[in-house]
Amino acid sequence: MDEAGPEIGRLIEMMAKLPGLGPRSARRAVLTMIAKKASVMEPLARAMAEAAAVVRACRVCGNIGSAELCAICSAPKRATGVLCIVEDVADLWAMERGRAFGGRYHVLGGVLSALDGIGPEELRIPALLERVADESISEVILALNATVDGQTTAHYIADQLEGANVEVTSLAQGVPIGGELDYLDDGTISAALAARRRF
Amino acid sequence: MDEAGPEIGRLIEMMAKLPGLGPRSARRAVLTMIAKKASVMEPLARAMAEAAAVVRACRVCGNIGSAELCAICSAPKRATGVLCIVEDVADLWAMERGRAFGGRYHVLGGVLSALDGIGPEELRIPALLERVADESISEVILALNATVDGQTTAHYIADQLEGANVEVTSLAQGVPIGGELDYLDDGTISAALAARRRF
Ligand SMILES: [Zn+2]
Ligand SMILES: [Zn+2]
Repeated sequence: MDEAGPEIGRLIEMMAKLPGLGPRSARRAVLTMIAKKASVMEPLARAMAEAAAVVRACRVCGNIGSAELCAICSAPKRATGVLCIVEDVADLWAMERGRAFGGRYHVLGGVLSALDGIGPEELRIPALLERVADESISEVILALNATVDGQTTAHYIADQLEGANVEVTSLAQGVPIGGELDYLDDGTISAALAARRRF
Repeated sequence: MDEAGPEIGRLIEMMAKLPGLGPRSARRAVLTMIAKKASVMEPLARAMAEAAAVVRACRVCGNIGSAELCAICSAPKRATGVLCIVEDVADLWAMERGRAFGGRYHVLGGVLSALDGIGPEELRIPALLERVADESISEVILALNATVDGQTTAHYIADQLEGANVEVTSLAQGVPIGGELDYLDDGTISAALAARRRF
Protein backbone atom coordinates (compact mmCIF):
# COMPACT_ATOMS: atom_id res chain seq x y z
CA MET A 1 0.00 0.00 0.00
CA ASP A 2 2.79 2.40 -0.88
CA GLU A 3 0.19 4.67 -2.49
CA ALA A 4 -0.98 5.57 1.00
CA GLY A 5 2.47 6.72 2.07
CA PRO A 6 5.21 5.05 4.09
CA GLU A 7 3.53 5.53 7.49
CA ILE A 8 0.38 3.61 6.56
CA GLY A 9 2.36 1.01 4.62
CA ARG A 10 4.60 0.34 7.61
CA LEU A 11 1.63 0.09 9.99
CA ILE A 12 -0.12 -2.46 7.75
CA GLU A 13 3.07 -4.50 7.43
CA MET A 14 3.51 -4.62 11.21
CA MET A 15 -0.15 -5.47 11.87
CA ALA A 16 0.00 -8.25 9.25
CA LYS A 17 2.72 -10.02 11.26
CA LEU A 18 0.55 -10.40 14.37
CA PRO A 19 -0.84 -13.91 14.90
CA GLY A 20 -4.34 -14.34 13.49
CA LEU A 21 -3.90 -11.43 11.09
CA GLY A 22 -2.59 -11.50 7.54
CA PRO A 23 -2.16 -8.86 4.84
CA ARG A 24 -5.88 -8.71 4.06
CA SER A 25 -7.16 -8.41 7.62
CA ALA A 26 -4.33 -5.99 8.48
CA ARG A 27 -5.44 -3.74 5.59
CA ARG A 28 -9.05 -3.91 6.74
CA ALA A 29 -8.12 -3.24 10.36
CA VAL A 30 -5.99 -0.23 9.43
CA LEU A 31 -8.68 1.23 7.16
CA THR A 32 -11.23 0.85 9.97
CA MET A 33 -8.85 2.58 12.36
CA ILE A 34 -8.28 5.43 9.93
CA ALA A 35 -12.01 5.88 9.38
CA LYS A 36 -12.35 6.23 13.17
CA LYS A 37 -9.11 8.02 13.87
CA ALA A 38 -10.18 9.90 17.00
CA SER A 39 -12.33 7.15 18.52
CA VAL A 40 -10.30 4.06 17.56
CA MET A 41 -6.84 4.68 16.11
CA GLU A 42 -5.48 7.29 18.52
CA PRO A 43 -6.87 5.61 21.67
CA LEU A 44 -5.53 2.23 20.49
CA ALA A 45 -2.05 3.63 19.88
CA ARG A 46 -2.13 5.20 23.35
CA ALA A 47 -3.45 2.03 25.02
CA MET A 48 -0.70 0.00 23.36
CA ALA A 49 2.03 2.39 24.49
CA GLU A 50 0.61 2.48 28.03
CA ALA A 51 0.36 -1.31 28.24
CA ALA A 52 3.93 -1.66 26.94
CA ALA A 53 5.12 0.79 29.60
CA VAL A 54 3.63 -1.08 32.56
CA VAL A 55 3.58 -4.76 31.58
CA ARG A 56 6.06 -7.13 33.27
CA ALA A 57 6.39 -10.77 34.19
CA CYS A 58 5.50 -11.78 37.74
CA ARG A 59 8.70 -12.51 39.67
CA VAL A 60 7.18 -15.64 41.23
CA CYS A 61 4.95 -17.35 38.68
CA GLY A 62 5.76 -15.82 35.29
CA ASN A 63 2.21 -14.53 34.69
CA ILE A 64 2.02 -11.00 33.29
CA GLY A 65 0.83 -7.96 35.17
CA SER A 66 1.88 -4.45 36.01
CA ALA A 67 3.67 -5.09 39.33
CA GLU A 68 6.49 -7.24 40.66
CA LEU A 69 3.89 -9.75 41.90
CA CYS A 70 0.93 -10.55 39.64
CA ALA A 71 -2.69 -10.21 40.83
CA ILE A 72 -2.96 -13.95 41.49
CA CYS A 73 0.28 -14.21 43.49
CA SER A 74 -0.81 -11.12 45.50
CA ALA A 75 -4.23 -12.55 46.43
CA PRO A 76 -3.96 -14.30 49.84
CA LYS A 77 -7.01 -16.49 49.21
CA ARG A 78 -5.20 -18.11 46.26
CA ALA A 79 -2.54 -19.58 48.58
CA THR A 80 -4.33 -22.95 48.60
CA GLY A 81 -1.19 -25.04 48.37
CA VAL A 82 -2.23 -26.19 44.90
CA LEU A 83 -0.02 -25.12 42.01
CA CYS A 84 -1.16 -25.35 38.40
CA ILE A 85 1.64 -25.67 35.82
CA VAL A 86 0.94 -24.15 32.40
CA GLU A 87 3.06 -23.67 29.31
CA ASP A 88 2.30 -19.99 28.75
CA VAL A 89 0.17 -17.05 29.83
CA ALA A 90 -2.47 -17.82 27.19
CA ASP A 91 -3.05 -21.19 28.89
CA LEU A 92 -3.18 -19.49 32.32
CA TRP A 93 -5.89 -17.15 30.98
CA ALA A 94 -7.78 -20.13 29.55
CA MET A 95 -7.70 -21.82 32.99
CA GLU A 96 -8.94 -18.61 34.62
CA ARG A 97 -11.82 -18.35 32.15
CA GLY A 98 -12.84 -21.84 33.27
CA ARG A 99 -13.33 -20.37 36.80
CA ALA A 100 -12.70 -23.80 38.29
CA PHE A 101 -9.22 -23.32 39.73
CA GLY A 102 -8.65 -21.31 42.90
CA GLY A 103 -4.94 -21.83 43.49
CA ARG A 104 -1.82 -20.29 42.01
CA TYR A 105 0.08 -20.92 38.79
CA HIS A 106 3.55 -21.53 37.53
CA VAL A 107 4.15 -20.51 33.91
CA LEU A 108 6.91 -22.55 32.29
CA GLY A 109 7.39 -20.28 29.30
CA GLY A 110 7.33 -23.18 26.84
CA VAL A 111 7.91 -26.91 26.73
CA LEU A 112 10.98 -29.11 26.57
CA SER A 113 12.06 -29.67 22.98
CA ALA A 114 15.20 -31.51 21.93
CA LEU A 115 14.62 -30.26 18.39
CA ASP A 116 14.60 -26.60 19.42
CA GLY A 117 17.31 -27.09 22.06
CA ILE A 118 14.97 -26.19 24.92
CA GLY A 119 16.02 -27.90 28.14
CA PRO A 120 14.81 -27.49 31.76
CA GLU A 121 17.08 -24.46 32.31
CA GLU A 122 15.44 -22.60 29.41
CA LEU A 123 12.06 -23.06 31.07
CA ARG A 124 11.13 -22.04 34.60
CA ILE A 125 11.49 -25.61 35.91
CA PRO A 126 14.26 -24.96 38.48
CA ALA A 127 12.14 -22.11 39.91
CA LEU A 128 9.18 -24.51 40.08
CA LEU A 129 11.15 -27.05 42.11
CA GLU A 130 12.21 -24.30 44.52
CA ARG A 131 8.61 -23.11 44.91
CA VAL A 132 7.38 -26.61 45.69
CA ALA A 133 10.02 -26.88 48.42
CA ASP A 134 9.45 -23.36 49.84
CA GLU A 135 5.70 -22.75 49.60
CA SER A 136 4.35 -25.86 51.34
CA ILE A 137 2.66 -27.07 48.14
CA SER A 138 0.44 -30.14 48.55
CA GLU A 139 -0.54 -30.69 44.91
CA VAL A 140 0.92 -29.84 41.52
CA ILE A 141 -1.54 -29.98 38.60
CA LEU A 142 0.17 -30.48 35.25
CA ALA A 143 -2.08 -28.52 32.86
CA LEU A 144 0.17 -28.92 29.84
CA ASN A 145 -1.07 -29.27 26.30
CA ALA A 146 -1.80 -32.77 25.04
CA THR A 147 1.05 -32.58 22.52
CA VAL A 148 4.13 -34.80 22.42
CA ASP A 149 6.37 -32.04 23.80
CA GLY A 150 3.76 -31.06 26.38
CA GLN A 151 3.47 -34.60 27.67
CA THR A 152 7.26 -35.11 27.63
CA THR A 153 7.55 -31.98 29.77
CA ALA A 154 4.82 -33.22 32.12
CA HIS A 155 6.65 -36.52 32.61
CA TYR A 156 9.95 -34.75 33.21
CA ILE A 157 8.41 -32.52 35.89
CA ALA A 158 6.65 -35.47 37.53
CA ASP A 159 10.02 -37.27 37.69
CA GLN A 160 11.72 -34.26 39.26
CA LEU A 161 8.99 -34.00 41.89
CA GLU A 162 9.31 -37.64 42.93
CA GLY A 163 10.21 -37.77 46.60
CA ALA A 164 9.10 -34.15 47.14
CA ASN A 165 6.06 -35.24 49.15
CA VAL A 166 3.62 -33.55 46.75
CA GLU A 167 0.72 -35.03 44.83
CA VAL A 168 1.19 -34.70 41.06
CA THR A 169 -1.98 -34.73 38.95
CA SER A 170 -2.91 -33.80 35.40
CA LEU A 171 -6.04 -32.61 33.60
CA ALA A 172 -8.41 -35.38 32.49
CA GLN A 173 -8.39 -36.21 28.80
CA GLY A 174 -11.63 -36.86 26.99
CA VAL A 175 -14.36 -35.53 24.75
CA PRO A 176 -14.73 -31.74 25.11
CA ILE A 177 -18.16 -30.43 26.16
CA GLY A 178 -20.18 -30.03 22.97
CA GLY A 179 -17.54 -31.98 21.07
CA GLU A 180 -18.73 -34.14 18.19
CA LEU A 181 -16.95 -37.46 17.97
CA ASP A 182 -16.73 -37.17 14.22
CA TYR A 183 -14.52 -34.11 14.56
CA LEU A 184 -12.17 -35.44 17.24
CA ASP A 185 -8.84 -37.03 16.46
CA ASP A 186 -8.42 -40.73 17.15
CA GLY A 187 -6.13 -40.20 20.12
CA THR A 188 -8.78 -38.18 21.96
CA ILE A 189 -11.41 -40.84 21.34
CA SER A 190 -9.23 -43.70 22.55
CA ALA A 191 -8.14 -41.69 25.62
CA ALA A 192 -11.77 -40.92 26.41
CA LEU A 193 -12.70 -44.58 25.98
CA ALA A 194 -9.89 -45.75 28.25
CA ALA A 195 -10.98 -43.25 30.93
CA ARG A 196 -14.70 -44.06 30.57
CA ARG A 197 -16.90 -43.65 33.64
CA ARG A 198 -20.12 -45.22 34.86
CA PHE A 199 -23.08 -43.27 33.46
CA MET B 1 -8.21 -10.62 31.39
CA ASP B 2 -8.51 -8.45 34.46
CA GLU B 3 -5.83 -10.60 36.10
CA ALA B 4 -3.29 -8.91 33.86
CA GLY B 5 -4.27 -5.42 35.01
CA PRO B 6 -6.46 -2.74 33.49
CA GLU B 7 -3.95 -1.61 30.84
CA ILE B 8 -3.65 -5.05 29.21
CA GLY B 9 -7.38 -5.69 29.60
CA ARG B 10 -8.24 -2.43 27.85
CA LEU B 11 -5.77 -3.11 25.03
CA ILE B 12 -7.25 -6.57 24.39
CA GLU B 13 -10.78 -5.16 24.40
CA MET B 14 -9.86 -2.51 21.83
CA MET B 15 -7.99 -4.95 19.61
CA ALA B 16 -10.92 -7.39 19.72
CA LYS B 17 -13.17 -4.76 18.10
CA LEU B 18 -11.04 -4.46 14.97
CA PRO B 19 -12.49 -6.24 11.92
CA GLY B 20 -11.11 -9.72 11.44
CA LEU B 21 -10.13 -10.00 15.10
CA GLY B 22 -12.19 -11.34 17.99
CA PRO B 23 -11.50 -11.88 21.69
CA ARG B 24 -9.34 -14.95 21.07
CA SER B 25 -7.14 -13.52 18.33
CA ALA B 26 -6.88 -10.22 20.22
CA ARG B 27 -5.58 -12.10 23.28
CA ARG B 28 -3.07 -13.99 21.16
CA ALA B 29 -1.96 -10.84 19.35
CA VAL B 30 -1.47 -8.96 22.62
CA LEU B 31 0.48 -11.83 24.21
CA THR B 32 2.73 -11.98 21.16
CA MET B 33 3.28 -8.23 21.38
CA ILE B 34 4.14 -8.46 25.08
CA ALA B 35 6.57 -11.32 24.47
CA LYS B 36 8.32 -9.06 21.93
CA LYS B 37 7.83 -5.74 23.67
CA ALA B 38 10.88 -3.94 22.32
CA SER B 39 10.77 -5.38 18.80
CA VAL B 40 7.00 -5.51 18.19
CA MET B 41 4.80 -3.78 20.77
CA GLU B 42 6.63 -0.48 21.20
CA PRO B 43 7.36 -0.02 17.46
CA LEU B 44 3.75 -0.89 16.60
CA ALA B 45 2.37 1.63 19.10
CA ARG B 46 4.70 4.26 17.64
CA ALA B 47 3.83 3.37 14.02
CA MET B 48 0.13 3.63 14.83
CA ALA B 49 0.51 7.03 16.49
CA GLU B 50 2.65 8.29 13.59
CA ALA B 51 0.20 7.04 10.95
CA ALA B 52 -2.70 8.62 12.85
CA ALA B 53 -0.81 11.92 12.95
CA VAL B 54 -0.21 12.15 9.19
CA VAL B 55 -3.10 10.32 7.53
CA ARG B 56 -5.72 12.39 5.69
CA ALA B 57 -8.19 12.07 2.85
CA CYS B 58 -7.13 13.36 -0.58
CA ARG B 59 -8.96 16.61 -1.31
CA VAL B 60 -9.68 15.52 -4.90
CA CYS B 61 -10.37 11.78 -4.95
CA GLY B 62 -10.99 10.70 -1.35
CA ASN B 63 -8.07 8.22 -1.30
CA ILE B 64 -5.96 8.33 1.84
CA GLY B 65 -2.43 9.62 2.06
CA SER B 66 -0.31 12.01 4.06
CA ALA B 67 -0.72 15.15 1.93
CA GLU B 68 -3.54 17.31 0.58
CA LEU B 69 -3.27 15.46 -2.74
CA CYS B 70 -2.75 11.68 -2.66
CA ALA B 71 0.13 9.99 -4.50
CA ILE B 72 -2.13 9.03 -7.42
CA CYS B 73 -3.62 12.50 -7.88
CA SER B 74 -0.08 13.97 -7.70
CA ALA B 75 1.35 11.68 -10.41
CA PRO B 76 1.09 13.46 -13.79
CA LYS B 77 1.22 10.21 -15.77
CA ARG B 78 -2.05 9.12 -14.13
CA ALA B 79 -3.93 12.01 -15.79
CA THR B 80 -5.19 9.69 -18.53
CA GLY B 81 -8.70 11.11 -18.66
CA VAL B 82 -10.06 7.80 -17.32
CA LEU B 83 -11.67 7.91 -13.87
CA CYS B 84 -12.35 4.75 -11.88
CA ILE B 85 -15.19 4.99 -9.35
CA VAL B 86 -14.85 2.84 -6.24
CA GLU B 87 -16.87 2.53 -3.05
CA ASP B 88 -14.01 2.82 -0.59
CA VAL B 89 -10.25 2.93 -0.19
CA ALA B 90 -10.06 -0.87 0.28
CA ASP B 91 -11.49 -1.26 -3.24
CA LEU B 92 -9.04 1.34 -4.59
CA TRP B 93 -6.17 -0.67 -3.09
CA ALA B 94 -7.60 -3.86 -4.62
CA MET B 95 -7.66 -2.19 -8.06
CA GLU B 96 -4.07 -1.02 -7.60
CA ARG B 97 -2.95 -4.53 -6.67
CA GLY B 98 -4.40 -5.67 -10.01
CA ARG B 99 -1.85 -3.33 -11.70
CA ALA B 100 -4.14 -3.03 -14.71
CA PHE B 101 -5.47 0.50 -14.24
CA GLY B 102 -3.31 3.54 -14.98
CA GLY B 103 -5.80 6.38 -14.46
CA ARG B 104 -7.14 8.15 -11.42
CA TYR B 105 -9.85 7.28 -8.92
CA HIS B 106 -12.88 8.74 -7.27
CA VAL B 107 -13.75 7.22 -3.88
CA LEU B 108 -17.47 7.50 -3.13
CA GLY B 109 -17.18 6.67 0.55
CA GLY B 110 -20.04 4.17 0.41
CA VAL B 111 -23.08 3.33 -1.70
CA LEU B 112 -26.59 4.72 -1.94
CA SER B 113 -28.87 3.05 0.58
CA ALA B 114 -32.47 4.01 1.19
CA LEU B 115 -32.44 1.75 4.25
CA ASP B 116 -29.50 3.55 5.85
CA GLY B 117 -30.62 6.97 4.63
CA ILE B 118 -27.56 7.42 2.42
CA GLY B 119 -28.32 9.66 -0.57
CA PRO B 120 -26.04 11.20 -3.22
CA GLU B 121 -25.12 14.12 -0.94
CA GLU B 122 -23.79 11.72 1.71
CA LEU B 123 -21.43 10.23 -0.87
CA ARG B 124 -18.93 12.13 -3.01
CA ILE B 125 -21.24 12.07 -6.05
CA PRO B 126 -21.62 15.87 -6.50
CA ALA B 127 -17.79 16.15 -6.40
CA LEU B 128 -17.59 13.41 -9.04
CA LEU B 129 -19.91 15.30 -11.42
CA GLU B 130 -17.79 18.42 -10.98
CA ARG B 131 -14.59 16.49 -11.71
CA VAL B 132 -16.04 15.02 -14.90
CA ALA B 133 -16.92 18.51 -16.08
CA ASP B 134 -13.61 20.10 -15.04
CA GLU B 135 -10.92 17.50 -15.75
CA SER B 136 -11.70 16.61 -19.39
CA ILE B 137 -12.59 13.05 -18.51
CA SER B 138 -13.25 10.75 -21.46
CA GLU B 139 -14.27 7.59 -19.60
CA VAL B 140 -15.75 6.76 -16.21
CA ILE B 141 -15.32 3.14 -15.08
CA LEU B 142 -17.88 2.07 -12.49
CA ALA B 143 -15.91 -0.41 -10.34
CA LEU B 144 -18.64 -0.84 -7.73
CA ASN B 145 -19.31 -4.07 -5.90
CA ALA B 146 -21.77 -6.49 -7.49
CA THR B 147 -24.26 -5.99 -4.66
CA VAL B 148 -27.77 -4.57 -4.96
CA ASP B 149 -26.75 -1.23 -3.43
CA GLY B 150 -23.54 -1.15 -5.47
CA GLN B 151 -25.43 -1.66 -8.71
CA THR B 152 -28.15 0.86 -7.73
CA THR B 153 -25.40 3.39 -7.14
CA ALA B 154 -23.76 2.54 -10.47
CA HIS B 155 -27.08 3.10 -12.30
CA TYR B 156 -27.65 6.39 -10.47
CA ILE B 157 -24.20 7.68 -11.45
CA ALA B 158 -24.63 6.54 -15.05
CA ASP B 159 -27.94 8.46 -15.17
CA GLN B 160 -26.33 11.59 -13.78
CA LEU B 161 -23.56 11.41 -16.39
CA GLU B 162 -25.95 11.13 -19.31
CA GLY B 163 -25.32 14.03 -21.67
CA ALA B 164 -21.93 14.74 -20.11
CA ASN B 165 -20.10 13.49 -23.20
CA VAL B 166 -18.25 10.79 -21.29
CA GLU B 167 -18.14 7.05 -21.88
CA VAL B 168 -19.48 5.13 -18.88
CA THR B 169 -18.28 1.53 -18.48
CA SER B 170 -18.27 -1.07 -15.75
CA LEU B 171 -16.09 -4.05 -14.80
CA ALA B 172 -16.96 -7.29 -16.58
CA GLN B 173 -18.80 -9.87 -14.54
CA GLY B 174 -17.88 -13.52 -14.79
CA VAL B 175 -16.02 -16.46 -13.32
CA PRO B 176 -13.00 -15.28 -11.29
CA ILE B 177 -9.59 -16.62 -12.35
CA GLY B 178 -9.14 -19.96 -10.58
CA GLY B 179 -12.80 -19.92 -9.59
CA GLU B 180 -14.56 -23.25 -9.36
CA LEU B 181 -18.10 -23.19 -10.73
CA ASP B 182 -19.30 -25.32 -7.86
CA TYR B 183 -18.41 -22.56 -5.40
CA LEU B 184 -19.90 -19.64 -7.32
CA ASP B 185 -23.36 -18.28 -6.67
CA ASP B 186 -25.98 -18.72 -9.38
CA GLY B 187 -26.02 -15.04 -10.31
CA THR B 188 -22.32 -15.11 -11.21
CA ILE B 189 -22.76 -18.20 -13.34
CA SER B 190 -25.71 -16.79 -15.30
CA ALA B 191 -23.94 -13.45 -15.77
CA ALA B 192 -20.85 -15.28 -17.06
CA LEU B 193 -23.00 -17.36 -19.40
CA ALA B 194 -24.79 -14.31 -20.77
CA ALA B 195 -21.43 -12.61 -21.40
CA ARG B 196 -19.81 -15.72 -22.95
CA ARG B 197 -17.12 -15.20 -25.54
CA ARG B 198 -15.78 -17.21 -28.47
CA PHE B 199 -13.03 -19.56 -27.24
ZN1 LIG C 1 2.39 -14.41 39.84
ZN1 LIG D 1 -6.34 11.66 -4.75
